[in-house]
Amino acid sequence: MNPDQRKQSVGIVTPRHFVIEEGLKLQCGQVLAPITLCYEVYGTLSKNADNAILIEHALSGDAHVAGYHSPEDAKPGWWESMVGPGKTFDTEKYFIVCSNIIGGCSGSTGPSSINPKTGKRYGMDFPLVTIADMVHAQKKLMDHLKIRKWLCVAGGSMGGMQVLRWALLYPDSLVSAIPIATSSRISPQSIAFNWVGREAIMSDPAWNGGNYEEQPDKGLAIARMLAHITYLSEESMRRKFGRKLQFSQDYSFDFDKDFSVESYLEHQGMRFVERFDANSYLYITRAIDYFDVTDKTGGDMAKGLEKMKCKCLVVSFTSDWLFPPEQSREMVRGMLKNGLDVSYCNIESSYGHDAFLLEDDTLGRLISNFLSNLETDKE
Amino acid sequence: MNPDQRKQSVGIVTPRHFVIEEGLKLQCGQVLAPITLCYEVYGTLSKNADNAILIEHALSGDAHVAGYHSPEDAKPGWWESMVGPGKTFDTEKYFIVCSNIIGGCSGSTGPSSINPKTGKRYGMDFPLVTIADMVHAQKKLMDHLKIRKWLCVAGGSMGGMQVLRWALLYPDSLVSAIPIATSSRISPQSIAFNWVGREAIMSDPAWNGGNYEEQPDKGLAIARMLAHITYLSEESMRRKFGRKLQFSQDYSFDFDKDFSVESYLEHQGMRFVERFDANSYLYITRAIDYFDVTDKTGGDMAKGLEKMKCKCLVVSFTSDWLFPPEQSREMVRGMLKNGLDVSYCNIESSYGHDAFLLEDDTLGRLISNFLSNLETDKE
Repeated sequence: MNPDQRKQSVGIVTPRHFVIEEGLKLQCGQVLAPITLCYEVYGTLSKNADNAILIEHALSGDAHVAGYHSPEDAKPGWWESMVGPGKTFDTEKYFIVCSNIIGGCSGSTGPSSINPKTGKRYGMDFPLVTIADMVHAQKKLMDHLKIRKWLCVAGGSMGGMQVLRWALLYPDSLVSAIPIATSSRISPQSIAFNWVGREAIMSDPAWNGGNYEEQPDKGLAIARMLAHITYLSEESMRRKFGRKLQFSQDYSFDFDKDFSVESYLEHQGMRFVERFDANSYLYITRAIDYFDVTDKTGGDMAKGLEKMKCKCLVVSFTSDWLFPPEQSREMVRGMLKNGLDVSYCNIESSYGHDAFLLEDDTLGRLISNFLSNLETDKE
Repeated sequence: MNPDQRKQSVGIVTPRHFVIEEGLKLQCGQVLAPITLCYEVYGTLSKNADNAILIEHALSGDAHVAGYHSPEDAKPGWWESMVGPGKTFDTEKYFIVCSNIIGGCSGSTGPSSINPKTGKRYGMDFPLVTIADMVHAQKKLMDHLKIRKWLCVAGGSMGGMQVLRWALLYPDSLVSAIPIATSSRISPQSIAFNWVGREAIMSDPAWNGGNYEEQPDKGLAIARMLAHITYLSEESMRRKFGRKLQFSQDYSFDFDKDFSVESYLEHQGMRFVERFDANSYLYITRAIDYFDVTDKTGGDMAKGLEKMKCKCLVVSFTSDWLFPPEQSREMVRGMLKNGLDVSYCNIESSYGHDAFLLEDDTLGRLISNFLSNLETDKE
């Protein structure tokens, strides 16, 4: 990305809120009502409403994809490198929408919201939501915004799972899909990591069955530190930290942090506790566990994907061991079997799973070309 | 392994204890005294004392490599498949020794031992021990057993680190070394996993600064579950568990265990708490973190290994991502640069790190051949 592009930003943006008064009947059978979705939009919707792109965020993400909420903000939105005037998701061409998921803690209804029946926070009375539920709620937002068809739905990691669900649940509502660094069914290894993370939270006495005023910060930090290891590759950790000591020339011979990588993890854990709700972490990781497009087809991938109609660009990263390229290939093989128009790219990267937030250049070019071709198709 | 071999066992064995009254000055500068080492022996020491093999155990292992402690024992020692009459480590030919490490909790002096200065358990007053300290203590046992030179020192995982330390600290005390599924310097990824495991233990209020009567079972179980994920490969988890549900046909839509892999982890965590001391877990993982043969050579592998003299068989497993084959290759390149007689085998296996305990057949043949060649050398 050239320096000029880097300087360009959508500028100051204001989060919006959309309320679904009647709520939703969820996959678990319960009704969640009312539902608030926090979302942001950038760019202008065309007269034909044919330039709208929905961006889906990952586990700990939010609706704030690009720009700044106030001039004092130190940091822009989480995909600033990709969304803005002249960028890959070009806000001069496209109308970009991003909605915080239900179950989250960044403005949408989640376990830390007030339960209208009790006047208290939901806590563990919040119903379990699935990726499909998240998408059904977003569909209501889409209708509210008077968008009939997304030009594209794109997202990485858990965002990619929402992309796939969109393509399966509302095949006529999108022209194209870009699932990035994701999987069409979560592996037992990921389920296992999620389990250990949740155990850490729920074992923290401060969690108190989900009824806390102060976060169960130790448990949540442990869950986050663990997850962070899975976001990096062994190679990127070696390059970034190696066996570097943080504070002195020699080992301390105690249990405080010695190594840079330990300091880094501690910092990541502490920062996360400040911004993310522990119960939301439980609910969202469970939604991820349950994600499997083949759960009604006895594991048959092509059958699981057969309702998909849209063009697809599938992207994986060579060193991503949380969602290994093989999981993308499995998905692509299923799509091809169904005769879908699908492109696949396994981007060479040493960054591990985090590559989807870091490999702006390669990923940006790839997506830009894909989006341009959509427009050519249209002409 | 044929059925006859499987039936053969060293039979009933009795753990022995060796006390080093004067103790040891440890790498951290403190003196640990007295030191008890719990060890087991199988087979008979030859007249020339030239048939002794030392087997080193891994993190949660112990001195009980083979046989049974009583006829009621349901399970034999941890490497029963490899050690016994007619097996790879043939107790009709070799005199096999295995010693529990210091810092451990299976009969040797560790944090759960009584501190003679206070009459209470050491707890966190136990000094930090390193892999080198473990080896120095074993050297005293070697002298006590009147063994001048080990025919071989062999071990997997942390056992392999002890093997390397033996070869570096006492190069004239062994004919050969077999480090298996290990590394010559622990990677930041492993340090990171160890950090998170220790945080889980030390965050459990029951840990109480290391002074507990009842184990901090939640924290220790979390540490163990996490470690267990790193012992399996993604593929072996997929084959073993897939997305199988444990109890019902459909998701429970709650946070109790749904998936077989969750049940498995919970079981592993609970079993571990019954047999392993939480403080020992802290101390041993820290010893692993500190293991780096190049820490005095600015990262130069050949220099770090230059004191080694013995023949070496290095073994890794293709799907081991905790100690990836590349870490073995790095070690082998250093040895070759130093002109050592080294063989290397990267065994094709889908079992991940656990392969060193499971690939009996291939590993057994490999080691048998290596040991036979040593005898031929001798003749």
